[in-house]
Amino acid sequence: MDFISERLKNQVEFLIEIDKLKHIFRKTKLFNKSRFENDAEHAWHLAVMALVLSEYANESVDVSKIIKMVLIHDIVEIDAGDIIVYDTQMRKLAEEKEKVAAERIFGILPEDQKAEFIDLWREFEKRETPEAKFAAAIDRFEPILQNYLTDYFAWKVHDVTIGMLYDKNKHIEDGSKEIWNVVESIFSEVKSKGVIKE
Amino acid sequence: MDFISERLKNQVEFLIEIDKLKHIFRKTKLFNKSRFENDAEHAWHLAVMALVLSEYANESVDVSKIIKMVLIHDIVEIDAGDIIVYDTQMRKLAEEKEKVAAERIFGILPEDQKAEFIDLWREFEKRETPEAKFAAAIDRFEPILQNYLTDYFAWKVHDVTIGMLYDKNKHIEDGSKEIWNVVESIFSEVKSKGVIKE
Repeated sequence: MDFISERLKNQVEFLIEIDKLKHIFRKTKLFNKSRFENDAEHAWHLAVMALVLSEYANESVDVSKIIKMVLIHDIVEIDAGDIIVYDTQMRKLAEEKEKVAAERIFGILPEDQKAEFIDLWREFEKRETPEAKFAAAIDRFEPILQNYLTDYFAWKVHDVTIGMLYDKNKHIEDGSKEIWNVVESIFSEVKSKGVIKE
Repeated sequence: MDFISERLKNQVEFLIEIDKLKHIFRKTKLFNKSRFENDAEHAWHLAVMALVLSEYANESVDVSKIIKMVLIHDIVEIDAGDIIVYDTQMRKLAEEKEKVAAERIFGILPEDQKAEFIDLWREFEKRETPEAKFAAAIDRFEPILQNYLTDYFAWKVHDVTIGMLYDKNKHIEDGSKEIWNVVESIFSEVKSKGVIKE
């Protein structure tokens, strides 16, 4: 395989490297319960969610920026692995690993694109801009839907309580009041059914 | 699960329905050869390819439109299945099925979004606009890279010849001369190695 420039060679190397995201499995199952979801599928689903649901963002948002963010937000997990959001201690430990991973993986790209992707990833992680808040909202909404449709699989296996559900997901409201409304109706249902601990 | 409107309910129904794309397997394998790729992973990979490689589009392009196109381009395969591009007869038969599939699946969405997604999908299929030409180029480039890195797996299994490779992929040049340049170097290598038939 020949390239007209070092730049294009590095870009293709990056595109080959990120194939590994298809082997990073999450804690939630696909809606038909057959197997765990991987990070690449998750990123695709969030990107389509952004396309379909962005009208519900609380603030005016740049949809294409949200899509870029969700497409690349989990690439660091190629090195750092997937940690469930409810495991606060492990999530904290993973943060340092993710920074190193971002440097290594986005560092395969030419400098300008590396900088662009690291900026997007940091913006997502900080959850301060309207786009990052909305991206974070759908990043939570997808696994909540998955749990709802798979008999609360990951919540049961990982001993997630009603308190933890509210604590780790209430920021959805910062991105979208309408999506939070759907999520709250799910949490109420879960609570009234008594399927997971208070 | 409660919704504030029929509109939001339909949008979430669509987002649940398209999970099935994760079960539609393609003919090419992941770069590490461990298993076949599915359509959701493929769409994610193309979207990141669009982000990284759009500077090589022959014409000035709207990158976010390319990304939208590749994110949804294979959703019709939930009903119509994945047919390898080299099987001209089966591809022709699939076309009618795909039209019906587009009506059914995008039809779950509210009318305005259904129209938007069907328009995007048709634009991709027609391959006339700069965005559609570039989207088609990366849609071909990914499986070519996969074949190159997996000992030409799908080309061997499906009796693809050098003539078929050129015939079905030469349109890459309409989207990007630089990407076509890389692809041609792969085809030359394959030809000189004699790994698949002329």
